[in-house]
Amino acid sequence: MKRVAVIGVGLTKFGELWDASFSQLFVEAGTRAINDAGIDGTDVDALYVGNMSGGRFIDQEHISCLIADYAGLTPIPATRVEAACASGGLAIRQGVMAILSGMHEVVVVGGVEKMTDLSTERTTQTLATASDSEWEAFMGMTFPGLYAMMARRHMHEYGTTREQLAMVAVKNHENALHNPYAQFHVRITVEQVLGSPLVADPLRLLDCSPITDGAACVVLASEERAKEFTDSPVFITGSGQASSSIALHSRESITFVDATYNAGQEAYARAGRSPAEVQVAEVHDAFTIGEILAIEGLGLVERGEGGRATEEGETAIGGRIPVNTSGGLKAKGHPVGATGVAQVVEVVLQLRGEAGKRQVDADVGLAHNVGGSGGTAVVHILER
Amino acid sequence: MKRVAVIGVGLTKFGELWDASFSQLFVEAGTRAINDAGIDGTDVDALYVGNMSGGRFIDQEHISCLIADYAGLTPIPATRVEAACASGGLAIRQGVMAILSGMHEVVVVGGVEKMTDLSTERTTQTLATASDSEWEAFMGMTFPGLYAMMARRHMHEYGTTREQLAMVAVKNHENALHNPYAQFHVRITVEQVLGSPLVADPLRLLDCSPITDGAACVVLASEERAKEFTDSPVFITGSGQASSSIALHSRESITFVDATYNAGQEAYARAGRSPAEVQVAEVHDAFTIGEILAIEGLGLVERGEGGRATEEGETAIGGRIPVNTSGGLKAKGHPVGATGVAQVVEVVLQLRGEAGKRQVDADVGLAHNVGGSGGTAVVHILER
Repeated sequence: MKRVAVIGVGLTKFGELWDASFSQLFVEAGTRAINDAGIDGTDVDALYVGNMSGGRFIDQEHISCLIADYAGLTPIPATRVEAACASGGLAIRQGVMAILSGMHEVVVVGGVEKMTDLSTERTTQTLATASDSEWEAFMGMTFPGLYAMMARRHMHEYGTTREQLAMVAVKNHENALHNPYAQFHVRITVEQVLGSPLVADPLRLLDCSPITDGAACVVLASEERAKEFTDSPVFITGSGQASSSIALHSRESITFVDATYNAGQEAYARAGRSPAEVQVAEVHDAFTIGEILAIEGLGLVERGEGGRATEEGETAIGGRIPVNTSGGLKAKGHPVGATGVAQVVEVVLQLRGEAGKRQVDADVGLAHNVGGSGGTAVVHILER
Repeated sequence: MKRVAVIGVGLTKFGELWDASFSQLFVEAGTRAINDAGIDGTDVDALYVGNMSGGRFIDQEHISCLIADYAGLTPIPATRVEAACASGGLAIRQGVMAILSGMHEVVVVGGVEKMTDLSTERTTQTLATASDSEWEAFMGMTFPGLYAMMARRHMHEYGTTREQLAMVAVKNHENALHNPYAQFHVRITVEQVLGSPLVADPLRLLDCSPITDGAACVVLASEERAKEFTDSPVFITGSGQASSSIALHSRESITFVDATYNAGQEAYARAGRSPAEVQVAEVHDAFTIGEILAIEGLGLVERGEGGRATEEGETAIGGRIPVNTSGGLKAKGHPVGATGVAQVVEVVLQLRGEAGKRQVDADVGLAHNVGGSGGTAVVHILER
């Protein structure tokens, strides 16, 4: 595919942001991205917004025009894209297509979620709408339960250990210490993970990503227009997206996320890259087992080797293939609709050399975003 | 813009479909569209779904992968697009862009909503999430109230009469008599509209579109690929989309929907057409005043002349510019996420000469879909 430039990025602090409204969060991240790009609002041709469930979290559907309105961007086209926790990644892909189609040249893509306005119970119910409502959620299944089954089976098939799962969380908390936008700035140990309250056996509290408010934005531009604004754009060179059975019980395997594999294959093919060429990756660690499934499905490690690779430090900063340098969903936080965009922001910062104390040496990066337990996956390859 | 072909269309019956699930509705419409196109599932590269509020109507977000799963279309990319009642029209536009981008060649675009599983009160609350939740819905405002203010002001500014509003409903019910997929097959009179229960003064029950279950699908293809499947495609030659203030109180005028105007201008410009060249139009008559605002905003009649044009039969079948030959949202029904796609289906049937007793003579048609009270509008120009 023709490449599309990322010319600006912006984030809000991730966390329990009770003082900020949904719209404020988006406008804060969007303003930072627009300022970072060195453009102003009149340069923007269209807006895409990833959001999982404004309708349930804040009683507001139709959020794309709400945001365009609050951001002073009307009358440009404003479009919400949703695929549960993959909403942000899908919004990026629609922004890329909008530019490749020739219909737009400069597009703002953001993701936003305000999750802490509901009770924990209603938040859990809302997140469960990303699973098969009739066959999973209705029966009482929630997301920790779904990922717990995937974890237990992975341990059974591949000998992945409870400690290896914990090491994903330990690594990502370590990385988040150096990310000022992260929700958690606290170092944790394997012992603390293993001693944290059991949520859904074998997953414990510190295996799970938190409930988070936050927003993330990028400014995309055609390669031609990008030259007006920057000498050093980062390019999206590959995009892949795939669907799979929404319910876990319908999949051939629950230890291999075929949507991740298929989205990865499409993205690699479009970029003309192989997994071995990826030097930094943000992947979807909503639960610790999620990161292991992700790096295996993306071919960054061999199938079944995700636990071992984590234990041996291959995915740490300084390792063979640093994963979730931002802190990941686990420690940076997981405002579900914003996550896929925030992942791209981190990869851009790494490729620009602006990642501060968590900087790695990379020319090729990857962002991987999952909806539900793997019903949707989307992968982008970025290069400087 | 380069044109994109519509090579297949399909609808479900619209109505209170208590025996059919959300997924069944989509699959029924999608199967008809695929059969109509003469393709099979393996030809489909991607799926777009317009849906307003699966999260609230059926406790299910992440509906795009649910549908891909139930339709046997995995692992293709499946993406939900949402902008309240404009969700279907936006999904069409994303499908067009996906093809123009070169990333896909054959795309199924559908819209679906299952609205009758909730109580009327909860349905009304859910529809109100398309307005500004903080400043309109929270204060008790619902959609009939918003459109009632627009109607009252239009009567004040332009002398539009209560009877003229009623004539929109009478015309659309007449048209629906000849549409086998329509929710209502009942002729009504101006006297019946004026005698129906008051909902929000001046709007009465028969000024309002109903609560509806239903789905609609189209198959889009690049012009090159379309030749494999059909000798007589209909082409989407123009697409326009615009945003405006989500809340009515923030607009300069409430008798002119600027998003409709801006979306129309973009669509006309991309197609190289003027309003005078449009020969058949499906427009967003969620309330009778909506049709009058639509035909004025689209330039099909002069500003302020919508009521008079309706009274004089200009918008009837056989008139100067037939509007809502399908019966419109008022009488065909308004499954909110499906509506924008169903509008395109009707225009395609008209351009193909397959509209039966409601057939008009047209080479150029237009579909116009609104989100909320006009926060979003999307317009497509179709030609044979």
